[in-house]
Amino acid sequence: MAAMVGLGPLQPARSATAHAAGPAVPVPSMKKIKVIQFGLGPIGIESLKLAADQSWLEVTGGVDIDPAKVGRSLAELTGAAVFGAAKVHPTLEALIGAVGQPDVVLHTAGSSAAVSLAQMKPALERGISVASTCEELIFPALKTPAVAAEYDALCRRTGARIAATGVNPGFVMDVLPICLTGVSREVTSIYVERVVNASTRRQPLQAKIGSGQNPDDFRAKFAAGKAGHAGFQQSVALLAHAMGWKLDEVRETCEPVVATSRVVTRFFDVAPGQSVGIHQKCVGLCGGETRIKLDLQMYLDAPLPHDAIVIKGRPDLNLVLNGGVAGDDATVAALINIVPRLLAAAPGLRLMTELAVPGWRNPRGVENGAAAT
Amino acid sequence: MAAMVGLGPLQPARSATAHAAGPAVPVPSMKKIKVIQFGLGPIGIESLKLAADQSWLEVTGGVDIDPAKVGRSLAELTGAAVFGAAKVHPTLEALIGAVGQPDVVLHTAGSSAAVSLAQMKPALERGISVASTCEELIFPALKTPAVAAEYDALCRRTGARIAATGVNPGFVMDVLPICLTGVSREVTSIYVERVVNASTRRQPLQAKIGSGQNPDDFRAKFAAGKAGHAGFQQSVALLAHAMGWKLDEVRETCEPVVATSRVVTRFFDVAPGQSVGIHQKCVGLCGGETRIKLDLQMYLDAPLPHDAIVIKGRPDLNLVLNGGVAGDDATVAALINIVPRLLAAAPGLRLMTELAVPGWRNPRGVENGAAAT
Repeated sequence: MAAMVGLGPLQPARSATAHAAGPAVPVPSMKKIKVIQFGLGPIGIESLKLAADQSWLEVTGGVDIDPAKVGRSLAELTGAAVFGAAKVHPTLEALIGAVGQPDVVLHTAGSSAAVSLAQMKPALERGISVASTCEELIFPALKTPAVAAEYDALCRRTGARIAATGVNPGFVMDVLPICLTGVSREVTSIYVERVVNASTRRQPLQAKIGSGQNPDDFRAKFAAGKAGHAGFQQSVALLAHAMGWKLDEVRETCEPVVATSRVVTRFFDVAPGQSVGIHQKCVGLCGGETRIKLDLQMYLDAPLPHDAIVIKGRPDLNLVLNGGVAGDDATVAALINIVPRLLAAAPGLRLMTELAVPGWRNPRGVENGAAAT
Repeated sequence: MAAMVGLGPLQPARSATAHAAGPAVPVPSMKKIKVIQFGLGPIGIESLKLAADQSWLEVTGGVDIDPAKVGRSLAELTGAAVFGAAKVHPTLEALIGAVGQPDVVLHTAGSSAAVSLAQMKPALERGISVASTCEELIFPALKTPAVAAEYDALCRRTGARIAATGVNPGFVMDVLPICLTGVSREVTSIYVERVVNASTRRQPLQAKIGSGQNPDDFRAKFAAGKAGHAGFQQSVALLAHAMGWKLDEVRETCEPVVATSRVVTRFFDVAPGQSVGIHQKCVGLCGGETRIKLDLQMYLDAPLPHDAIVIKGRPDLNLVLNGGVAGDDATVAALINIVPRLLAAAPGLRLMTELAVPGWRNPRGVENGAAAT
């Protein structure tokens, strides 16, 4: 027989006293956090649907420039009755005029840091915090350092925080490897690879990776910055920043993956010789040495999807996420889960690594057995 | 040829302007953080040796009650000349009287939360923050909620922070799985297993897991709370707290692993029938359902050491750390790496999950290529 040490019932009330007041873990019975959704594309709608399930959130409205959406109710757009009379406004100012200030804006309206920051200026000026899926905002100082500094200063003045999150960039190829190095005495290099079976993903993603296109056309589009995975260089920059490596060069390449036989998905029918996806690489060099190497394969019918992290140092670390992390579902999860951590952070333009450890936020607040699913 | 998007040289100065002022990433040219080492056992000495390599730390002294150590120089005890005249004092008060206040105490002097907090009271009362390897401090409200609440209040009054870290508890079986759920829409259960080959570890660990002992003697010792892995229930409590699961029961069991043939290490020669280590389990139940299950095998010559995390939910997540995380090296790394994150946190008794994402702190500050190893 196994020796057993019984703990007996825990004392959650006292435990809550000691910890629930901590900034990263708002007390579930607290006033709900008021959020609004900025951008009502496919990801914005998914974000709203997930927000609808959160007992700790109150969604007071949405913002989109599309005249076909303005004035419509969020309940109608998402099928979630909980949204009641909340509706779509043409601008942030119009929304605030109609329903007052939210605590947080959920922003899913673009990949450019400069554009996203400009969109969010009316919120940040009012001290309203912003959680975004904007890829360049994962490390905005990479491409637009002056703009990043300006908005950081603005946020510090008004008490707002803005941070971007996601699955990639924002987690698998940057935040997760950084988290792993928390137990490192020394790190000499970081390699991350991610293989995604794009056949399981939404149509826009299959299109974005060039499915069915002529490989040369895709190459030209990538060279013009109009195709491929966005935010790769920002992942490298975030890794380098966290490791204290001042990079002298970041190199990014992208090759189409070409079909050797016909590939059929729900959305595409690709003949041999046409593109089925991408093989994108990004490396960061410090003094001529490759310190960071990211390798992303995202194509239709990719076998053995997975994420892998190899950290050389002391100790060496070798991590595999079998099956990988499904992107579409997980992106909006990352966005919602970050909200309490964002509000607990110091004002400013924040990196994911400056917020509290990521983690799931239970939609039901604190569950006891009876309330469990 | 691969299409290439050249970034050209980064602009680290502007990047630093935007981000280095953030709380989690102190500017490398800042004043060094003054630390002292409390507890000069094997882990304390390892902590000092690692601290000696950090350009951003200044070690001003050590504290130990052992009369054989008091008065000796840290340089002599560790072989690190960088410590100069810093020496061992019998108490924290004596150290402060002699060399003034440090910014942070590195505490490696015990497993009991109540004892560790009492040891650290003179520091916390003076607003000095504490990073600790104390296992129960990973979730102090589990066993000593009133004491935890009292010290949390004390820290908030004085501006001090205290938090505990480590590899296990503190990372592999709690913080890392929590971090993974940052991309989860739903989590229904968490399973973590850890297999450690104890033959590669230090003598005290081989002794602690009962190597060479009679299995029945070991069972009796575990039942009396005098053997086995410390902090297991705290890992379960931290996971449950982060997931919003109010546990109604935590069950912990430990069985000796018995040698089937002779096992020889540098420290032990174990005959068949004697213990070579432990198989310890800890589960957390919510409404009669097992939500959390931790499984730890730590024994001599354990094959295929690894850490694995299986999270059921949406999405399912399946992580393997091949080879696992070596404990001894990594524990002191976790302790040193937490220091800047601790100082950036809000005052109080803090959980690891309330601090910024873990990450390596480059001993050389910010490296360019020339300064790289």
